[in-house]
Amino acid sequence: MHRWSQLFIPTLREAPADAEVASHKLLLRAGYVRQLGAGIYSYLLLGNRSINKIVAIVREEMDAIGQEFLLPALNPREIWEASGRWSVMGENMFRLKDRKGADLCLGMTHEEVMTDIARKELRSYKQLPQIWYQIQTKFRDEPRPKAGLLRVRQFIMKDSYSFDIDAAGLDVSYDKHDRAYRNIFSRCGLDFVAVEADSGAMGGSASQEFMVYTDAGEDLIASCPNCHYAANLEKATSALAVVTELADGVVEEVSTPTQRTIDEVGAFLNVASVYQMKTMAMVVTTPDGKSKTIVAFLRGDHMLNEAKLATAVGGGELRPMVAEEILAAFGAPAGFLGPIGVKADFVILDAALEGRKNLITGANKEGFHLRNVTPGKDFKPTLIADVRNINEGEPCPKCGTSLKLGKAVEIGHIFKLGYRYSESMGASVLDSNGKEVMPIMGCYGIGIERILTAAIEQSAANRGIDARGEISYAMPPSIAPFEVVVTVTNVADETLRAAGETVAQALDKAGFDTILDDRDERAGVKFKDADLAGIPFRINIGKKLAEGKVEFVNRLTNESVDVAVEEVTQALTRVCESASK
Amino acid sequence: MHRWSQLFIPTLREAPADAEVASHKLLLRAGYVRQLGAGIYSYLLLGNRSINKIVAIVREEMDAIGQEFLLPALNPREIWEASGRWSVMGENMFRLKDRKGADLCLGMTHEEVMTDIARKELRSYKQLPQIWYQIQTKFRDEPRPKAGLLRVRQFIMKDSYSFDIDAAGLDVSYDKHDRAYRNIFSRCGLDFVAVEADSGAMGGSASQEFMVYTDAGEDLIASCPNCHYAANLEKATSALAVVTELADGVVEEVSTPTQRTIDEVGAFLNVASVYQMKTMAMVVTTPDGKSKTIVAFLRGDHMLNEAKLATAVGGGELRPMVAEEILAAFGAPAGFLGPIGVKADFVILDAALEGRKNLITGANKEGFHLRNVTPGKDFKPTLIADVRNINEGEPCPKCGTSLKLGKAVEIGHIFKLGYRYSESMGASVLDSNGKEVMPIMGCYGIGIERILTAAIEQSAANRGIDARGEISYAMPPSIAPFEVVVTVTNVADETLRAAGETVAQALDKAGFDTILDDRDERAGVKFKDADLAGIPFRINIGKKLAEGKVEFVNRLTNESVDVAVEEVTQALTRVCESASK
Repeated sequence: MHRWSQLFIPTLREAPADAEVASHKLLLRAGYVRQLGAGIYSYLLLGNRSINKIVAIVREEMDAIGQEFLLPALNPREIWEASGRWSVMGENMFRLKDRKGADLCLGMTHEEVMTDIARKELRSYKQLPQIWYQIQTKFRDEPRPKAGLLRVRQFIMKDSYSFDIDAAGLDVSYDKHDRAYRNIFSRCGLDFVAVEADSGAMGGSASQEFMVYTDAGEDLIASCPNCHYAANLEKATSALAVVTELADGVVEEVSTPTQRTIDEVGAFLNVASVYQMKTMAMVVTTPDGKSKTIVAFLRGDHMLNEAKLATAVGGGELRPMVAEEILAAFGAPAGFLGPIGVKADFVILDAALEGRKNLITGANKEGFHLRNVTPGKDFKPTLIADVRNINEGEPCPKCGTSLKLGKAVEIGHIFKLGYRYSESMGASVLDSNGKEVMPIMGCYGIGIERILTAAIEQSAANRGIDARGEISYAMPPSIAPFEVVVTVTNVADETLRAAGETVAQALDKAGFDTILDDRDERAGVKFKDADLAGIPFRINIGKKLAEGKVEFVNRLTNESVDVAVEEVTQALTRVCESASK
Repeated sequence: MHRWSQLFIPTLREAPADAEVASHKLLLRAGYVRQLGAGIYSYLLLGNRSINKIVAIVREEMDAIGQEFLLPALNPREIWEASGRWSVMGENMFRLKDRKGADLCLGMTHEEVMTDIARKELRSYKQLPQIWYQIQTKFRDEPRPKAGLLRVRQFIMKDSYSFDIDAAGLDVSYDKHDRAYRNIFSRCGLDFVAVEADSGAMGGSASQEFMVYTDAGEDLIASCPNCHYAANLEKATSALAVVTELADGVVEEVSTPTQRTIDEVGAFLNVASVYQMKTMAMVVTTPDGKSKTIVAFLRGDHMLNEAKLATAVGGGELRPMVAEEILAAFGAPAGFLGPIGVKADFVILDAALEGRKNLITGANKEGFHLRNVTPGKDFKPTLIADVRNINEGEPCPKCGTSLKLGKAVEIGHIFKLGYRYSESMGASVLDSNGKEVMPIMGCYGIGIERILTAAIEQSAANRGIDARGEISYAMPPSIAPFEVVVTVTNVADETLRAAGETVAQALDKAGFDTILDDRDERAGVKFKDADLAGIPFRINIGKKLAEGKVEFVNRLTNESVDVAVEEVTQALTRVCESASK
């Protein structure tokens, strides 16, 4: 049992002006954390208690499927050179030199170190499968640290890596993680959604993110209220309504003297944007450092999703071309660029234009567009791919219901890596025929602080502002710094104090993580501090003690009931049991 | 319960050639750790299990006296400038720049961050005392990483910091740590000794190190076999026998044409070294960057202890002067330098020469020494201080018994810091009279990996080489990766296999951290692997099962007994209970 009077729980009346999201404000005000520098936080007593509880849940679920390691944060340059990522990671990776001038970096992730162990230690298919995990501090030099613990430069991650003999084995390891992650997030009290995610250009074949809806999040996800289809915007698709095409005709130039944009051309020719083809000219710097040109065609009313486009072209950094580059590369002025006769490294047709006909698009000639252009007939794209953003309200690809778009924060990610690291770093084992084969890998991550912040954001969003005008929240009991606070409303009253002591001892003995607020403060101050700390259950020892009763406040349900003093432990046990059902 | 067949425990037949000490060899061979770079290790399953158990013990004992935080490894330059240590830490501190060019370092220790929190959050004496601790990764760019986990560049430390209103409060916080540390090391199964340590030049008033005797250690400690006096060599003293002085006489020059050393002068003048004064000329670079000269006088047969001398002059880096510097600074040739008329920033007389008389020493003149020099009468030192090394066999300062010198490794350190950081970083609180006062601080550290290595070294030293010609050791049960292994000697025998399963399940259920060796390997291989892993107890399920018996091997005592299969759990419980007494 803990006594508030003995603990260091520094609260703030107000959050700093730069704290915008609820979790940032609350973590600072309640004394969970203090900022040391941009994106660098110290976790004080309350913050550390919640973190330790999250870590314990993660460890328990991960121990059921894998083996815990602990890898160093300091990584020699050599292993990142071996994987080819020393140069790819750019400024996000903290780099340093040791006293002898050798290059080191601080690990952002540990595919390299894990694969290094695998390539040195694994020799035979008999040693597979392996799932190795760790709970360890990662460092990333975020360009814009913000939102408290949501985007920081140092954070704790559970990362795991699976090594299997074949794709079927990887499926099993991946599914084990999927189940473990669902257990972890449920036990941490989160309402999460698992979404299809972009596998990126890493050669992965499947990828799923675990998200918590919150306006504090920076990811957009599309979800179906009917069939539970959900996907990151970088992956989401929709079932578009069939468009009634314009009447057939031959390809012909049409004068559009100053009309360059979809809207300008549409107004001038009196034709809806759905009948136009939008041309996007981009440059991609590929992972091996080459520059390639891309011309992508989308329906006039659609927007490009750069992550989808990057995946379609095999990865790399994208940027739009400027007008001078477009003219130099394609001999066409910006605003009049079109598909017929255009030569680029990638000519990409968005999947939504597949099968369409009689479209209006640029003529590659100043002051002209073309009518009646039909993809496939009048020009051949090098690739047809889904490279657009879907919009809210478009039909679900599975059931046709209108999709919702919402902001969310990512709390976990599971990913079928494939052979990316086994190949680049030279990991192999002998299979049952004595043949050398590469193990197939998966990687899986959970952001420990993200669980804490998502829990706060979720609760704050549900509860809104309380009667005091304060942001209100309550931590899920499993990860709250304390599960229950016993508040002695007046410590000068010896009877109340003694009863508080008895009740708190009983709760502690029953296994509840209990704090006794024994401070010589007004009851209002104590209630406010307890609420600020997010403690989900409060037992108030006050005047009703004369009738043998105390007040039991359940902040998860906002219910408050009087309970006989000797029945407090049973009452709390009952509430916790029903909550966990 | 764990199954060996499912775990990743890669063993090596031989340790790498550069592994010299027992713990380094064993940690690698048993698959506890793998090296990633110089002084950088990955902890695999076994290593991580032991580390987690040590951490749990440390956390439990520390929670009884303090509050757990978690501070960032990334520290902005500013707080290290505030304490004045940005420049002092030199090349031992890893430094880096972020993407914006701001200077950061990786925390070697956290006085700065803790004091920063204290100065911002503590306002009143009512908030004191505070003991804040963390279990966190430290980074130090060791010039010569070696000996496996004994001297590394990244390691886990429990560090704590106390803040008190006055020196009496600090005594209490210090004593709490002393007791907690003794509990921790005892529970981890270590034979440790608490020694007086050098408080250094940090203004600390008391300091104690917890050491484990091992030849793998790099510290020398003096201890008394009779009265338990023990001290680091940097602090140790002895009760020297009284010297019968030479006959009185006047100070006079004596020709020593080519005799410069103590031995040469002694032989030439036929006088024992105990009647000579040795002159040491040194330069100290003080913490604020100034160079100062030191001339120190010791008894002819005594050796200088540089750490003691550094403390005596208020800290800094020491080096001996070369002959040219001695001549330039004192006008005397090296080998003939002496105390009379010498001018230096510090003229130091070793405490062993206090009260002595009629000594022989340099005359500050080529080819001459002086006779009959009496300190205090013939020259005045600026300081009398203990600056010598004691020797093995000298009398204990407390009881007179001959002292022993031994190598040891430091596992913990407790330290009364005083006002060093409160003052430099501006931490203050209001005392009960409303007056602003500085909190007085203590700092306290435990090396988590040091506990692991010390336990291995200690056991290996006690056990020596086994019948197989292997280094033999057994981990203390509390921190062993597994407490007990149930070895099925032949898994092809279904009866043995089933019995192994039953015994292992029973042990697991009784709370023992149990591993079942269910591998299809020869019994000899399994015994060897189990011993290599340091598992303290082994239950062998073999032929005697026909008589209802299994073999119970206690590797801590090297006893092996046959036990009825249904009594294994009781037998192990009994052994563990008697071991913990």
